[in-house]
Amino acid sequence: MLWSGWGDPAKAAPLPDSVIGLLRDLLGVTPLETGPAVLDGIDVPESPLSPGARQALADCVGDAHVHTDAESRIRHTRGKSTPDLLRIRAGEVDDIPAAVLLPGSHDEVLAVLRACTEHGVAAVPFGGGTSVVGGLAPEVKRSFVALDLRRLDGLLALDEVSRTATLQPGLRAPQAEALLNERGFTLGHFPQSYEWASIGGFAAARSSGQASAGYGRFDEMVLGLTVATPEGTWEAGRAPRSAAGPDLRQLVLGSEGALGVITSVTVRIRPLPATRVYEGWRFASFEAGAAALRTLAQDGPRPTVLRLSDETETFIGLAQPDKIGNSDAPQPGGCMAIAGYEGTPEDTEDRRTRARDVLLACGGEFVGEEPGERWAHGRYNAPYLRDALLDAGAFAETLETAGFWSALPALYDEVRQALTATLTEAGTPPLVMCHISHVYENGASLYFTVVSAQGDDPVAHWAPVKRAANDAILAAGGTISHHHGVGTDHRDWFTQEIGPLGVRVLKAVKAELDPAAVLNPGVLIPVR
Amino acid sequence: MLWSGWGDPAKAAPLPDSVIGLLRDLLGVTPLETGPAVLDGIDVPESPLSPGARQALADCVGDAHVHTDAESRIRHTRGKSTPDLLRIRAGEVDDIPAAVLLPGSHDEVLAVLRACTEHGVAAVPFGGGTSVVGGLAPEVKRSFVALDLRRLDGLLALDEVSRTATLQPGLRAPQAEALLNERGFTLGHFPQSYEWASIGGFAAARSSGQASAGYGRFDEMVLGLTVATPEGTWEAGRAPRSAAGPDLRQLVLGSEGALGVITSVTVRIRPLPATRVYEGWRFASFEAGAAALRTLAQDGPRPTVLRLSDETETFIGLAQPDKIGNSDAPQPGGCMAIAGYEGTPEDTEDRRTRARDVLLACGGEFVGEEPGERWAHGRYNAPYLRDALLDAGAFAETLETAGFWSALPALYDEVRQALTATLTEAGTPPLVMCHISHVYENGASLYFTVVSAQGDDPVAHWAPVKRAANDAILAAGGTISHHHGVGTDHRDWFTQEIGPLGVRVLKAVKAELDPAAVLNPGVLIPVR
Repeated sequence: MLWSGWGDPAKAAPLPDSVIGLLRDLLGVTPLETGPAVLDGIDVPESPLSPGARQALADCVGDAHVHTDAESRIRHTRGKSTPDLLRIRAGEVDDIPAAVLLPGSHDEVLAVLRACTEHGVAAVPFGGGTSVVGGLAPEVKRSFVALDLRRLDGLLALDEVSRTATLQPGLRAPQAEALLNERGFTLGHFPQSYEWASIGGFAAARSSGQASAGYGRFDEMVLGLTVATPEGTWEAGRAPRSAAGPDLRQLVLGSEGALGVITSVTVRIRPLPATRVYEGWRFASFEAGAAALRTLAQDGPRPTVLRLSDETETFIGLAQPDKIGNSDAPQPGGCMAIAGYEGTPEDTEDRRTRARDVLLACGGEFVGEEPGERWAHGRYNAPYLRDALLDAGAFAETLETAGFWSALPALYDEVRQALTATLTEAGTPPLVMCHISHVYENGASLYFTVVSAQGDDPVAHWAPVKRAANDAILAAGGTISHHHGVGTDHRDWFTQEIGPLGVRVLKAVKAELDPAAVLNPGVLIPVR
Repeated sequence: MLWSGWGDPAKAAPLPDSVIGLLRDLLGVTPLETGPAVLDGIDVPESPLSPGARQALADCVGDAHVHTDAESRIRHTRGKSTPDLLRIRAGEVDDIPAAVLLPGSHDEVLAVLRACTEHGVAAVPFGGGTSVVGGLAPEVKRSFVALDLRRLDGLLALDEVSRTATLQPGLRAPQAEALLNERGFTLGHFPQSYEWASIGGFAAARSSGQASAGYGRFDEMVLGLTVATPEGTWEAGRAPRSAAGPDLRQLVLGSEGALGVITSVTVRIRPLPATRVYEGWRFASFEAGAAALRTLAQDGPRPTVLRLSDETETFIGLAQPDKIGNSDAPQPGGCMAIAGYEGTPEDTEDRRTRARDVLLACGGEFVGEEPGERWAHGRYNAPYLRDALLDAGAFAETLETAGFWSALPALYDEVRQALTATLTEAGTPPLVMCHISHVYENGASLYFTVVSAQGDDPVAHWAPVKRAANDAILAAGGTISHHHGVGTDHRDWFTQEIGPLGVRVLKAVKAELDPAAVLNPGVLIPVR
């Protein structure tokens, strides 16, 4: 993973000149005067870990698994939101961990948490490091360690009859898929962060993948969890479904490392699909397309992948970044939807045929498999494009929400309006694009992408815009996050969303499991 | 509701002589020497409510809605488990509430909980009064009031676009269905307690209905909840799905009145099905039938209703109580499954046709619609049959669990063995029947029915048997309840199931929301 951006540096590609011209003409984007910091040049403070604390932690995981060198610590500083990238590119490392620990077992995690409690050191669980909501930047005035779970990368069990698998949290999604694929199964969880994100992170942040219409959200896949807490081991989930009290799995899911460190996850698995087909549909408007998606979500048949870009996103073709600014590429009007089907050949064909009737009846125009295959080919590329945009002097960020179907039009309008108005007032009129990325019987998610000029101090420039968008989301009845999570960036809106009693409940649970507040302090819920 | 048994007294029917003979010959059931208590003859102690407390409560709900007469209090004593019925039939009212309150609004519930806190009076939320796990019998050394929610019986909102409805908790299921049906929708929630159970109870106890294969469990239908607690109002759920922290709805669901009083529930609704068809399938063995159900649950198509009786239940034909002992009725060997389909004519026919191919391929024999229609016709009758069995001197009780598919055979064997061995040792060899009542991709529920002679002291006779069954459930990896709940009867096994940290988490949440422990003390979690 690129320390100052996304993914495999070998896959990075600069923007074509045509796009740079478009950014300049359309948004006033000008080239940066200075390039990003270089790794070796960053001024990293000495690790503030006391010798006693360092020794205690080394006693837990072994000396070889305690890293205090600059590069390890820089690589575990914050996550991958655009402000995170802008700050690390500027060489800003005020959120740097004191050390990076690599525990090798559940018991080692337990021991680390006890040692952290004893020595007053905070601990931040670190999976793929892909948080885009400040989930890896605790609010601490004391030192903290990053608990990198990469050594916990095993498939612990696979039950072919019950179709369950028990996975360790440090498995990156492609590793987990490979282990399951070998046995003929898939998890079916493919978020945009797929290539780097981890199983533990999916659970901790309630991830949702691009094929959620067919495979469900990650929180719907989880059947059991083992959690290491400062107070000991907590196991949740004994049967697929139960009436034995509140579902405590659902308290662990979304807890973002603030209640414990997830050390194993038992998930539902499905047979590896023999067939995968993705196709494009064009609708006259976002409203018409949304109505079609709603019809499929409510009355079926349910595609495996179902998404719809609004007019702007369709026009810009963000789904096909390599074509931006290429005037030879066809630029269809209206709104583009992608419907994908995965499964047995019979099931795929059956659903596809019946869904086609529904989409046609809803005014959709079939535009063939090419747009679908293009989407599938480029589905993990957007974060690379963001790096290129930042390099070119543009600002690019995403944010997302979900709401009930009847609330969706206002939610769409008001968030777009908040983004456009605040950035325009700040002198950097943006391009705001949106798509529906996940559908449910009762509602859907909205995923916004914003591109503008950076402004003089891009992190400060963005902050009031993000606040305005968050305010608009709550005012229009949306949830502050559909799949990115809360972290520190959304915390103040999350507390509004769940209300004072909801916050008190979470604080009471945290105080019980983590009385010294060593776990990700300030993430999810306020420290005080 | 019959105060000493189930349902509408007009629907009660004595057992045919043939069945009485069968019970005598097979199980040694002998007629009771004394009949049950009569309502007027029960010696009810004076309400222990102090005048000050009574006045404070009357100030909350109005004097007309505070009932301290004997009949009201008897009718709110315990629930409808077999031990509950045996005790109330014996005139035993040591668990009687001091008063029955009928609040008329959320704010009145809030006021009652504050008054209870102030006056040291416990409060037990009471919906349909159908708990079979001791959920209405708190462990209190002080007085408690029953909070009967029947006046909260409105449909607060219906969103046809999002397909959601907001229901008050005191709506009994048929009332809720009628209100939704008028608008062309259904909840699709039809547990055996359907005719009497309430919306609030479904949520509080994580109910699951007979059509759960198609409509899902009640906890899967819930999108939002409003809860009155001694510390104020708690609202959970803002979007269909969210990544904004832990899903706090899932902490309310299954909380059984111990964390708050649910005062409104927003649920997913579905269009009223135009077509309903139920059919019977015969399998050579429970194992073969279970494999067929698993195939449908995992690979589809998914019927709306899917259940399978084991050999004994099929033979006894408990699903057709009016035919028991009727030697003219055909008694097919093997195991009977019911598959039901509800929906549009096209969807119903499509799923039925494809499921038929699967069931045939799994060795099923189609036995026509008659067994399916018979099941549908008698689906709410079993509790009436139990009353008749108790009248005839027999003991009859049910218990249930769920587990992963691979654990199901051992779970089935060990629970059946525990029931048979303990009752046989006690001198009353039982008839033990079982069915799979709910299926999931990863597992299923097992629902056991036990019939035996009563023994001299039937409540004491049953206690060690129930303990042995609970022990067997946990030992074999099952959950202590799939849909009946925890109450006081399952509490000691529930605490084993969720472990010490799980218990501490729930206690911490309860202490935060209900610091004076007035809410259903001893239900779900221990008082101390």
